Amino acid sequence: MDLQQLLTDINAAAPDHFGQGKVADYIPALASVPARQFGIAVYTVDGDLYFSGMAQKRFSIQSISKAFSLAMAINRHGDALWERVGKEPSGTAFNSLVQLEFEHGIPRNPFINAGALVVADSLCSRLSAPVHAMLEMVRLRAGEASILIDRKVADSEYEHRYRNAAMANLMKSFGNFHNDVDRVLRAYFSYCALSMNCVELAKAFSFLATGGKCLQSGEQFLSRRQAQQMNALLFTSGLYDAAGDFAYRVGMPGKSGVGGGIVAVLPGRFTACVWSPELNEYGNSVAGIWALEELSKALDLSLF
Amino acid sequence: MDLQQLLTDINAAAPDHFGQGKVADYIPALASVPARQFGIAVYTVDGDLYFSGMAQKRFSIQSISKAFSLAMAINRHGDALWERVGKEPSGTAFNSLVQLEFEHGIPRNPFINAGALVVADSLCSRLSAPVHAMLEMVRLRAGEASILIDRKVADSEYEHRYRNAAMANLMKSFGNFHNDVDRVLRAYFSYCALSMNCVELAKAFSFLATGGKCLQSGEQFLSRRQAQQMNALLFTSGLYDAAGDFAYRVGMPGKSGVGGGIVAVLPGRFTACVWSPELNEYGNSVAGIWALEELSKALDLSLF
Amino acid sequence: MDLQQLLTDINAAAPDHFGQGKVADYIPALASVPARQFGIAVYTVDGDLYFSGMAQKRFSIQSISKAFSLAMAINRHGDALWERVGKEPSGTAFNSLVQLEFEHGIPRNPFINAGALVVADSLCSRLSAPVHAMLEMVRLRAGEASILIDRKVADSEYEHRYRNAAMANLMKSFGNFHNDVDRVLRAYFSYCALSMNCVELAKAFSFLATGGKCLQSGEQFLSRRQAQQMNALLFTSGLYDAAGDFAYRVGMPGKSGVGGGIVAVLPGRFTACVWSPELNEYGNSVAGIWALEELSKALDLSLF
Amino acid sequence: MDLQQLLTDINAAAPDHFGQGKVADYIPALASVPARQFGIAVYTVDGDLYFSGMAQKRFSIQSISKAFSLAMAINRHGDALWERVGKEPSGTAFNSLVQLEFEHGIPRNPFINAGALVVADSLCSRLSAPVHAMLEMVRLRAGEASILIDRKVADSEYEHRYRNAAMANLMKSFGNFHNDVDRVLRAYFSYCALSMNCVELAKAFSFLATGGKCLQSGEQFLSRRQAQQMNALLFTSGLYDAAGDFAYRVGMPGKSGVGGGIVAVLPGRFTACVWSPELNEYGNSVAGIWALEELSKALDLSLF
Repeated sequence: MDLQQLLTDINAAAPDHFGQGKVADYIPALASVPARQFGIAVYTVDGDLYFSGMAQKRFSIQSISKAFSLAMAINRHGDALWERVGKEPSGTAFNSLVQLEFEHGIPRNPFINAGALVVADSLCSRLSAPVHAMLEMVRLRAGEASILIDRKVADSEYEHRYRNAAMANLMKSFGNFHNDVDRVLRAYFSYCALSMNCVELAKAFSFLATGGKCLQSGEQFLSRRQAQQMNALLFTSGLYDAAGDFAYRVGMPGKSGVGGGIVAVLPGRFTACVWSPELNEYGNSVAGIWALEELSKALDLSLF
Repeated sequence: MDLQQLLTDINAAAPDHFGQGKVADYIPALASVPARQFGIAVYTVDGDLYFSGMAQKRFSIQSISKAFSLAMAINRHGDALWERVGKEPSGTAFNSLVQLEFEHGIPRNPFINAGALVVADSLCSRLSAPVHAMLEMVRLRAGEASILIDRKVADSEYEHRYRNAAMANLMKSFGNFHNDVDRVLRAYFSYCALSMNCVELAKAFSFLATGGKCLQSGEQFLSRRQAQQMNALLFTSGLYDAAGDFAYRVGMPGKSGVGGGIVAVLPGRFTACVWSPELNEYGNSVAGIWALEELSKALDLSLF
Repeated sequence: MDLQQLLTDINAAAPDHFGQGKVADYIPALASVPARQFGIAVYTVDGDLYFSGMAQKRFSIQSISKAFSLAMAINRHGDALWERVGKEPSGTAFNSLVQLEFEHGIPRNPFINAGALVVADSLCSRLSAPVHAMLEMVRLRAGEASILIDRKVADSEYEHRYRNAAMANLMKSFGNFHNDVDRVLRAYFSYCALSMNCVELAKAFSFLATGGKCLQSGEQFLSRRQAQQMNALLFTSGLYDAAGDFAYRVGMPGKSGVGGGIVAVLPGRFTACVWSPELNEYGNSVAGIWALEELSKALDLSLF
Repeated sequence: MDLQQLLTDINAAAPDHFGQGKVADYIPALASVPARQFGIAVYTVDGDLYFSGMAQKRFSIQSISKAFSLAMAINRHGDALWERVGKEPSGTAFNSLVQLEFEHGIPRNPFINAGALVVADSLCSRLSAPVHAMLEMVRLRAGEASILIDRKVADSEYEHRYRNAAMANLMKSFGNFHNDVDRVLRAYFSYCALSMNCVELAKAFSFLATGGKCLQSGEQFLSRRQAQQMNALLFTSGLYDAAGDFAYRVGMPGKSGVGGGIVAVLPGRFTACVWSPELNEYGNSVAGIWALEELSKALDLSLF
């Protein structure tokens, strides 16, 4: 099968899926993004790049950054990280405090907000400049020095920080949050406000397809086992409260963000990134999910 | 790597993991099973069989039967089944009523008790003899006509039926349970009381490794897509509240039972079954989980 | 103040409050009751009776029966009853299973469904004919031998029994339910299906105004302390999830039913009963609550 | 009955109840209070004062202050306050976030922490010096100008503020918190850190026994109706998760604090205050509850 042709076809059919979702509107900076846009990129473990549509237009990566911060934290803390955050699917809305209270301040996994806050807290304990360090890491992973954090988005998220502040304070009351809440929130929102495009994201996640090695820098970013484990976590918990449905339909580890981006990994083969701003009720891109399901079906890509 | 040698080595080391768990004791028929037993079997898609230890001693398959009943229900109802049961990980204890109440009688997935009860209810709607039909199906899948249901176990479970009866009645109050509660409970407990050994279970699940085809009967039991989807569900939800940890450590779709058995699938390669009665706090076999992790590491078997 | 005039005035103004609620419709036998009806009766500790409107038209007393069954159970079991049911307000919807699961099968109080089921179970353990015994007791309390159970209502409730059956089974799984579930449900629904009017109910509850003595039979039904304690429980938990609001507005112990009846007690002074079928979102009679608030304000009746 | 003799007898028997509870230890300033102390005071609506034991030794009033702040807020906001906080018993642990999340940031009642935080927030919206205003009000109510806030306690509570900060932030995320979180927390902890003795507290709450009039200042602090309503709320929700048991045993509106104090009101008759630092599992003074039950039984004081 001609992969480029497939991406071209998917891009051509994507507009059929416009108008079925809603652009994220909890902060003005996201609400103003035009809805009917679509891009897709695939980056193989051999270094071949394919893309179609608006694959080079940057968007707010939002929760996709949770995979970056987790990788950085695994890199620095190793297995000790798992004493502070679980590895189980959440089974409840992605920002619920209920679970956090019942489980004494240990978030279920690193991809729900509470878990990503603990991960950010763990980075703030090791890094004097946690935002700068993230930016440098992402630029290296993507091989693209022009990547930036959108300060307007980060500031706007901070102004609407109260639910995240509640979770951070709750975890602090259980002893599972070590730094100043505001400092960590600032870092966390900066990570979410990274602005990248499909091509950059597909490249930046290549280490998950290769068994830990970054194809841009040549660096062994994670160990082979760590990359496998991270894929397992993405498979069971990467898509909020719709991880099971994504597994069922697409069958690949993935991570989505409310900016409309979704990254998926086929270990040993490629990374893919789709982007389309309209979200379904679970906060995942409508056209993005559809496109990845098409890709999966066309190439018989399911891991299973 | 010599697979037979690997299984022999795993069996030899298994006793190091005895004494760390507890045999299921909620019914006398299970509580009386001797604790320090271990068996393992691997059945490849080429029809080769490897085993070691007590792989031919039968045990109560318990929740492993939930995968059989799901396959039967998919076979009969197709996608319509998913209107009555979800595809998401549960995120709470495997028999919790809380989730069921909040989500209006729709169980999160077919592998928690509530979900398996709905699946059994769906079979009772289509089959005049749902217990007999299951027994025949399992015998065909395993190529072994002597497989039986342990009536003593089934009766004992029925006597302790009240939590399951509560769930069935709650779902009935939401309109998601169509048959007489007692009839379905009888069928459900009979399924759980199937008595099989590791070799029989490894063979019986071959359709999940082959893309739907049963190697014993030659029958295409599920479609290729259905088998992939069922593996995805087993991966995200097959091990109760420890699915994430199992995915992280073993990286294969699997299903466990409180009888101490665990079945795992490496699509395109093999099915495996381990058995050892001592359970960890999540209701999964201690030595069983260890053995599958060894297998996964030794063969670099992770899907990721 | 002329009490008869007050009741006449309240009855005259009651129609202003029609059309703001909804008649209970979960069973046909209740749904068919004409909505725009109102009755009120007051029975003093001196044996004086005042009433107005449809105070002599019988209706389904429903949950008001929970106060009768509690009194019978206190009478038979004394303080031992409180090992099986709590004395605290529920804080959640009146038929929630969540609380029951978290608190291991001990219902919060005897006025939520789960609590009343435990109370009925405790009566079934002591009485060979628990329905007959209730009927005799209520006839004695009200001084009226023609009181009956509406079998059509009881049967209809039984047909819609599944949520109550779920609770009974859940409590049985925790060891807090001793008799056959179906036998207790039959008794429980029979109690709910008692058909009485405002005058009969005001008389039947006189023992709560007098410190335990039934004014019709002359019998000391409960001890003075038991009557005080039962009033305290009615005050904190008698009106489902609106007990606090009722306390705030009316300031008397009370018990409501979805048939539209509400009984209130002013200890040392009188019992009152109002009836009007339209219910608010909490399942309490709209015009009934209004009427009791009027009574409370007009007579400055608040206990506080 | 000789009330002074009764208090003397109760004080003499109080040591029998020492050693059954635990002094609050979540902050050092409270943990260091000697456990085996007891005091009791009764202040009648005629202005007669009776006391025994350590009734003039000051202690940290803690949550008793929630009744003061509620009275101040009712005074300033009237019924508008009830749009931001409920009137229902909580039915869960007194500082649970679960309820707050399910009910969209509206606390169940003004006596749980979340509710008292909303009340404090409402005072911060109206008062430029909310701490000073509280201190002045309490001094007026008690007729005692030397009453102070213990800064060490207030500061220590602030250092352990995280669970309360989580609740405040969660309510802010729902739009039910208007001022800066830190400013309100400072005020709230200052209120809790008021240091008063039994005599002062009995006097300060006289307005609840008189129908709203403060006996020290002669001022009509609340309307008669407001005082009745506040008593109703204290009756249903004043003792954390043990309000039902307190109602059952003592039968009076009351408010407790983890400093070991409990205030109780018998409308039309008196206010009482007991103090003893050892707390039961619900955070209420062991000897204090016992003493109030004795008082209630000896004087047949139950409202019912």
